[in-house]
Amino acid sequence: MKISFASDNNSGIHPEIMKSIEDANKGSYIAYGEDPYTIEALKIFKEVFGQETETFFVLTGTGANITALQTFTDRFNAVICANTSHINVDECGSLEHILGVKLLTIETQNGKILPDQLNLFMHYQGDQHHVQPNVVSISQPTELGTLYTIQELRDLVCQAHKLGLKVHLDGARLANAAVALNCQLRDLTTDVGIDVLSFGGTKNGLLIGEAVVFFDKENCKQFRFIRKQNTQLVSKMRYISAQFIPYFKKDLWKENAQQANLLAKYLYHKIILVHPEIIAHKPQTNAIFIILPKKVALKMQNERFFYTWDAEHDVYRFMTSFDMTQDDVDEFASFVLSNLK
Amino acid sequence: MKISFASDNNSGIHPEIMKSIEDANKGSYIAYGEDPYTIEALKIFKEVFGQETETFFVLTGTGANITALQTFTDRFNAVICANTSHINVDECGSLEHILGVKLLTIETQNGKILPDQLNLFMHYQGDQHHVQPNVVSISQPTELGTLYTIQELRDLVCQAHKLGLKVHLDGARLANAAVALNCQLRDLTTDVGIDVLSFGGTKNGLLIGEAVVFFDKENCKQFRFIRKQNTQLVSKMRYISAQFIPYFKKDLWKENAQQANLLAKYLYHKIILVHPEIIAHKPQTNAIFIILPKKVALKMQNERFFYTWDAEHDVYRFMTSFDMTQDDVDEFASFVLSNLK
Amino acid sequence: MKISFASDNNSGIHPEIMKSIEDANKGSYIAYGEDPYTIEALKIFKEVFGQETETFFVLTGTGANITALQTFTDRFNAVICANTSHINVDECGSLEHILGVKLLTIETQNGKILPDQLNLFMHYQGDQHHVQPNVVSISQPTELGTLYTIQELRDLVCQAHKLGLKVHLDGARLANAAVALNCQLRDLTTDVGIDVLSFGGTKNGLLIGEAVVFFDKENCKQFRFIRKQNTQLVSKMRYISAQFIPYFKKDLWKENAQQANLLAKYLYHKIILVHPEIIAHKPQTNAIFIILPKKVALKMQNERFFYTWDAEHDVYRFMTSFDMTQDDVDEFASFVLSNLK
Amino acid sequence: MKISFASDNNSGIHPEIMKSIEDANKGSYIAYGEDPYTIEALKIFKEVFGQETETFFVLTGTGANITALQTFTDRFNAVICANTSHINVDECGSLEHILGVKLLTIETQNGKILPDQLNLFMHYQGDQHHVQPNVVSISQPTELGTLYTIQELRDLVCQAHKLGLKVHLDGARLANAAVALNCQLRDLTTDVGIDVLSFGGTKNGLLIGEAVVFFDKENCKQFRFIRKQNTQLVSKMRYISAQFIPYFKKDLWKENAQQANLLAKYLYHKIILVHPEIIAHKPQTNAIFIILPKKVALKMQNERFFYTWDAEHDVYRFMTSFDMTQDDVDEFASFVLSNLK
Repeated sequence: MKISFASDNNSGIHPEIMKSIEDANKGSYIAYGEDPYTIEALKIFKEVFGQETETFFVLTGTGANITALQTFTDRFNAVICANTSHINVDECGSLEHILGVKLLTIETQNGKILPDQLNLFMHYQGDQHHVQPNVVSISQPTELGTLYTIQELRDLVCQAHKLGLKVHLDGARLANAAVALNCQLRDLTTDVGIDVLSFGGTKNGLLIGEAVVFFDKENCKQFRFIRKQNTQLVSKMRYISAQFIPYFKKDLWKENAQQANLLAKYLYHKIILVHPEIIAHKPQTNAIFIILPKKVALKMQNERFFYTWDAEHDVYRFMTSFDMTQDDVDEFASFVLSNLK
Repeated sequence: MKISFASDNNSGIHPEIMKSIEDANKGSYIAYGEDPYTIEALKIFKEVFGQETETFFVLTGTGANITALQTFTDRFNAVICANTSHINVDECGSLEHILGVKLLTIETQNGKILPDQLNLFMHYQGDQHHVQPNVVSISQPTELGTLYTIQELRDLVCQAHKLGLKVHLDGARLANAAVALNCQLRDLTTDVGIDVLSFGGTKNGLLIGEAVVFFDKENCKQFRFIRKQNTQLVSKMRYISAQFIPYFKKDLWKENAQQANLLAKYLYHKIILVHPEIIAHKPQTNAIFIILPKKVALKMQNERFFYTWDAEHDVYRFMTSFDMTQDDVDEFASFVLSNLK
Repeated sequence: MKISFASDNNSGIHPEIMKSIEDANKGSYIAYGEDPYTIEALKIFKEVFGQETETFFVLTGTGANITALQTFTDRFNAVICANTSHINVDECGSLEHILGVKLLTIETQNGKILPDQLNLFMHYQGDQHHVQPNVVSISQPTELGTLYTIQELRDLVCQAHKLGLKVHLDGARLANAAVALNCQLRDLTTDVGIDVLSFGGTKNGLLIGEAVVFFDKENCKQFRFIRKQNTQLVSKMRYISAQFIPYFKKDLWKENAQQANLLAKYLYHKIILVHPEIIAHKPQTNAIFIILPKKVALKMQNERFFYTWDAEHDVYRFMTSFDMTQDDVDEFASFVLSNLK
Repeated sequence: MKISFASDNNSGIHPEIMKSIEDANKGSYIAYGEDPYTIEALKIFKEVFGQETETFFVLTGTGANITALQTFTDRFNAVICANTSHINVDECGSLEHILGVKLLTIETQNGKILPDQLNLFMHYQGDQHHVQPNVVSISQPTELGTLYTIQELRDLVCQAHKLGLKVHLDGARLANAAVALNCQLRDLTTDVGIDVLSFGGTKNGLLIGEAVVFFDKENCKQFRFIRKQNTQLVSKMRYISAQFIPYFKKDLWKENAQQANLLAKYLYHKIILVHPEIIAHKPQTNAIFIILPKKVALKMQNERFFYTWDAEHDVYRFMTSFDMTQDDVDEFASFVLSNLK
């Protein structure tokens, strides 16, 4: 079977993570988080993100985003985001459907919001005819594979807070960002002033499992109700929590993300060497965006599925993941290049 | 560590199910259900419930109920249910929050709705001032551990359909019901005319995994959007699907439920022998409801957690699960009886 | 044309109110409430209900209830109410649809909630599996035409506040209640501790117009957004506001309600004299509930429309209104009695 | 008192309309639309828009838009609209809040959507990760005062229908459009294939009153529930309906719109003669958009309120209405010009 380069969620479970699930499968434990695995995992999250943080486990990335954002929005509020963001494009209108709030979208160069772009939404502040934005949601890395520098994050958060906006970080692939920027997870979150984080595990080696991290305990007092009523409270929580223990203790978050990022760079080099013209932009994490003639793309997609990113501009996406090898990339690069002859 | 009798979701993963997860952890597969495990599992569901059915995997019981019911309700519709039902009591208002529809509740003797009780809600049919009920949701077994007979199910569905109501079955523990009634799963669903089923796996041996089964394909054409926008679409779906393969192929659904039911009967006999007065009613599946003085209950709950079922009437619940042994029950029975001296 | 006794909203506009609309129809004024009529009307509301109150005009009774209750409920909250309440029965599921919150209903003797009945909903306080009630909504008079005494109101509000519940009063016919109890409007609201009031005008002489009154300014800071997004902000607000000026200044609220109540009593006496057996209960305001054989009722309804109140128990409702005369009642009484021979 | 040029909803009630309200104020009538005024008004709407249409009266423009769009959208659908549209900008997020659907916005040159712009949203059709657009909502005139020609409307509707999209027309000022284009109301609606229309009355001479017109009866079968649950069902409906009778019978819709349009043109000429540089674009109906230095605008707004249309580009709006005279415009023009010296 050939490896899929469609998405990092086509990957499997890391062996150490699998082992943690097996280890947790002993005896009976109170459900819904009152088990020792959850207690330990939550302790580790405090070590990673800071003692003043509070973490809750949820099931899916959309679930993490929805519940995090419900916490900060009243029904007449709006969430500012990039028009390319996952919450705007890829969640089937979940935010509008479940929260009933409006998304105010920003056209960006590369998926990244600039501090000044927030100002435009402030004209209507206090006017009863208009929704009241009070959160900005950003992604790191963005859906275009780009990265905010730590300074850019700090400046954006600072401007948001100045305008009275909370900041949500969609960190479905935050590990890949931290590795690429050679920093710690808290450098991109706690230390730049993020208010709430959707922290992804599934794409980087877990079976299933995401976390919502609050950086000020005051903000999560009602979160347990929000998680439950949005179908994100899992009964046998130990099996989610247990995975996060080796994920952090054995630095799998780093090791896995490193491997994915490295292989993306390797694939990029193999392609650019022969066909520099198809590279949309240089990869910063584990996604490569390339431009293909529609016909070629279709022929390739028929053989091996990968996503059309921007049908209008013929942009396609390849993704690497933690469980790929250099051989896998060699094989895939041959496939790509042979189709471009 | 002492076994918890609080709920069957305090149980672990059955070894054969665990093995199926490990087996699925090979190679990369397209996410969101385009993998061979999901394809095989869906084929098995057709064998179990009928070729004309269509099944979708979801993550939680609340997720299954919400998505199943969204499929059949427009925004001005209402869902009729027992006032003791899980969707009414135990899902933190998820249905009202996410679907925005009203629950019209029925006071029942024992958790079971009688066909005639549906008629009362028909007075307002067609009147613009009132919500329009168009679904009745029932549980088998009910939240009180009682069972509809097959004939009762058939009569209720028949009356519902006569009144223009669709029927949703919350089957979080349907396996326990089928075992108790010594019948097949389809005897309680397909063959009595159920329209949509929430089929539970988690409480009976899975890590996590529920299924929404439609008995007429016409009804599920939009379900993929409903599942996604309600955060119930899992990316690495193979790990959910794979569990259902041995669950059916090796008859684990039956074997596990049988063990849980048997142990409940065993515990019941041990208690009734000494303290018949505390038994609220005879268990039909794997839940036992007992009546305790508040003080005694509190003392016991401090030692070993179990749920208060009806605070007003001092009813408490004990539950058995597939991974308990006769020794576990002996030990727990001693604990209970020693507190009642 | 024969007068309809179906509802007090079958009545017309009081001549003085009509005149106020005509008077307001001079010149152009800033819309949405920045006009002198609205400013004056709001000043009068402060005189009536207290300087510490804050009032907002809305369009319909359902609109008033929805917006008042949205102010006090987060998405995981629930509203406690009588099962006979207008918000539960007669608003087509508006509350669940628009607010997404659950209604927890109480079975009552006569439409009135007893303080102790609130306690039952407190068992689940703080438990993530259950919606969190934080408002109780009552009606004065109730939908069954009954009245809380001032002391009963005080006791109920006191118990609600003790339990951490806010109190909403649906006062669609509060004027009729005040007249019947021979008290001021503030005796039933401000002075007993009500938190928010839906104050009706339409049924008692206005063209259209309701008001939401907050008794603590702190609670209504976001109400302008809530009113707008729930379609209850009227552009030419002066025509709503202007009506409330004579309504209070010329004591029309009192005079109109008095007439309606008196005629109800008069009709009641005419019926009870001949057919005491059909009276369901003695009227306290302007609604009379009677019990009729289905056949008789149907025949009568074919001639002159009136509402079936409780189809199960054959209860029907007659209502009087401010613009009826004694002659109208005589004529209607003859019609009723002639059908009962 | 000086006339306000802020909006046409600062205007009053036309004398003939006022008379129709007074005339309707005789006797008692069944509420909620079962009165002779409503019956007659609905008959007139059929004459105006076609016998195959079905009309429902509602209260506000937002109410009309919300209820019209709820009729055509399931919870996973989206509505395509111009980013300048009223439903996107000026309704405080009502659509997202109440319907829970997403707005997909189009950047336009002048408020008008081009047929080809619809195609972009079709890439994701059928893909479970993305909301499914199924309605396009347009405004005539647009919020920028521009007009679609009849042919442009026909082409846009044709393209929408080809893509499987229904077409909603926000016609809050449709009368002004018809007068400007010298055509009948049905030329812009029935005859170009519009599916549902929000038809405004309030801005053109009514006290309050809007109508939702369906052009195919099949589509409005559930509308009565939708209207009620969205707080748009008025009890004393006769007073809304009655206004529409002279509105059409005496051609007030035309006469009033004509006057407003003419005065806008007159004001435009007075300004352009002296200060052509401040005209943003030539008015097509009754709105004039001008560009002012921030300081000047602020000084003027302090004296006489008018709206800032686009704070970023210093665009302001003046509006004329049916009850203005040439003298009013002369006076206002002087005010404007004197501030520009």
